[in-house]
Amino acid sequence: MRAFDAALAASAAVVEATLAHVLPKNGGPEARVFAAMRYDTLGGGKRLRPFLVIQGAKLFGVPEPWAARAAAAVELVHCYSLVHDDLPAMDDDELRRGRPTCHIEFDEATAILAGDGLLTLAFEVLAAEATHPEAVVRVALVAALAKAAGAEGMVGGQMCDLEAETRSLALEEIKRLQRMKTGALFGFSCEAGAILGKASQGPRQALLAYADDLGLAFQIADDLLDAEGSEAEVGKKVGKDAALGKATFVSLLGIENARKEAQRLVHRAVSSLAIFGEKAEPLAELARFVIARRA
Amino acid sequence: MRAFDAALAASAAVVEATLAHVLPKNGGPEARVFAAMRYDTLGGGKRLRPFLVIQGAKLFGVPEPWAARAAAAVELVHCYSLVHDDLPAMDDDELRRGRPTCHIEFDEATAILAGDGLLTLAFEVLAAEATHPEAVVRVALVAALAKAAGAEGMVGGQMCDLEAETRSLALEEIKRLQRMKTGALFGFSCEAGAILGKASQGPRQALLAYADDLGLAFQIADDLLDAEGSEAEVGKKVGKDAALGKATFVSLLGIENARKEAQRLVHRAVSSLAIFGEKAEPLAELARFVIARRA
Repeated sequence: MRAFDAALAASAAVVEATLAHVLPKNGGPEARVFAAMRYDTLGGGKRLRPFLVIQGAKLFGVPEPWAARAAAAVELVHCYSLVHDDLPAMDDDELRRGRPTCHIEFDEATAILAGDGLLTLAFEVLAAEATHPEAVVRVALVAALAKAAGAEGMVGGQMCDLEAETRSLALEEIKRLQRMKTGALFGFSCEAGAILGKASQGPRQALLAYADDLGLAFQIADDLLDAEGSEAEVGKKVGKDAALGKATFVSLLGIENARKEAQRLVHRAVSSLAIFGEKAEPLAELARFVIARRA
Repeated sequence: MRAFDAALAASAAVVEATLAHVLPKNGGPEARVFAAMRYDTLGGGKRLRPFLVIQGAKLFGVPEPWAARAAAAVELVHCYSLVHDDLPAMDDDELRRGRPTCHIEFDEATAILAGDGLLTLAFEVLAAEATHPEAVVRVALVAALAKAAGAEGMVGGQMCDLEAETRSLALEEIKRLQRMKTGALFGFSCEAGAILGKASQGPRQALLAYADDLGLAFQIADDLLDAEGSEAEVGKKVGKDAALGKATFVSLLGIENARKEAQRLVHRAVSSLAIFGEKAEPLAELARFVIARRA
């Protein structure tokens, strides 16, 4: 196994263990929503955002147990967004990571509640003392995550994405949409390590620049997979954007130019990491990975 | 106007102004979700939870601008829960506070996202410095709200409520359900003032005991309105529980005994406030109000 694959697997294992620990279990008649929350979050996934948190935190010498909790919080938010986005009223997806989506496996009401529970739990995890001994650090994490995930970040991005089904967006509008929908949470994932490590502005801005390019490159790769991948490989339905006539990086740039733009963004993302030297190699590898992945 | 009505109107005005200030406005293609969030939260309502926060905070001499923000956070969570509970997959309600519910006025996807945005904003509001100068207080508010609103509180309570449609609950199960679904957020509303005022355990426990009885009394009154009220008076559909054959305080106790139980709870709630003396009179009045209200 390459060093990068091992590092990705290791951080996935760390965050999975933390998620299993913080998620509610047992319970009375509410056990159904607990089970749905565990189904949504313990069902695999690449755990890219936790990797960003954990590797970002390493740059500042942050103890891994703290980073693992911030990583779990980000993953809880990511998973809640998938559960809600998959609902019939939204993207209406029945397959996710090769398994039935939450509202198929359970039902719509349970899926809505499970998403609500996951989002709420993310803030509970960040606010708990085990995440960092200093309240000022914990509350900074809460503020940054809320901003990234909220109506001016991820939630607003999903709203834009739904609006994009009704009219064709131009390239700059798609970039803005993706910065909100995907980029904001990537940004928080990178920033979390800097917040936990009380980093100064220079390194923090470098990580945010990296995250911004990484997020767009990731989204272009997603569009390419939707255009070129197979359902069996990708683990979810493909060809949806074209079927909806939705403007994407691929429909606007063409496959070849979209691929080139993703490469350019990855190159620039890696160059933003220069100030960290060798230590940032896992983050550089991740950037290369997001455009090479097949799922 | 009685002193109590004036106090209720005054705290409603304070929280409405704070909500108008913290809610996002304008925006690009995401403006639709901003509009839905404002529709959900600025459309009136009794603002009982903000009243609890503001009056609870007064007991400890907390400056009103801090209390107003904590009150806004609670109301954001309350309003998000109404938006999601009203969805077709959940309670399928078309009328709320005498107006079309969010998914009727907008659409289901927007309603899901608006709820998500409101919940996230609640934590952003609490985490901001304007809520309290000390990070340790702000993060305590975040932790307490997340616990009250999450899967082991309000979200779990709604799950139990949906499960209650499939089998008949006994009285103790209904009490547990309501403590989670309604009581937890009432509890936080009362606790918030104590947290902001760094109150000691004694007063804090007294407020929580008050909140617990108040929450159950409130719910019994709700059941009575559902059984006896008219849609025009109540501002939402009535008679739903009986139509669904759902066990409620009213179906289990009968109307007369339910009313007596609510009175007993209010009496006990008021007696929990004794340690605060005259200062707690508005909270005592509120307890009497919740079982006398017609909507």
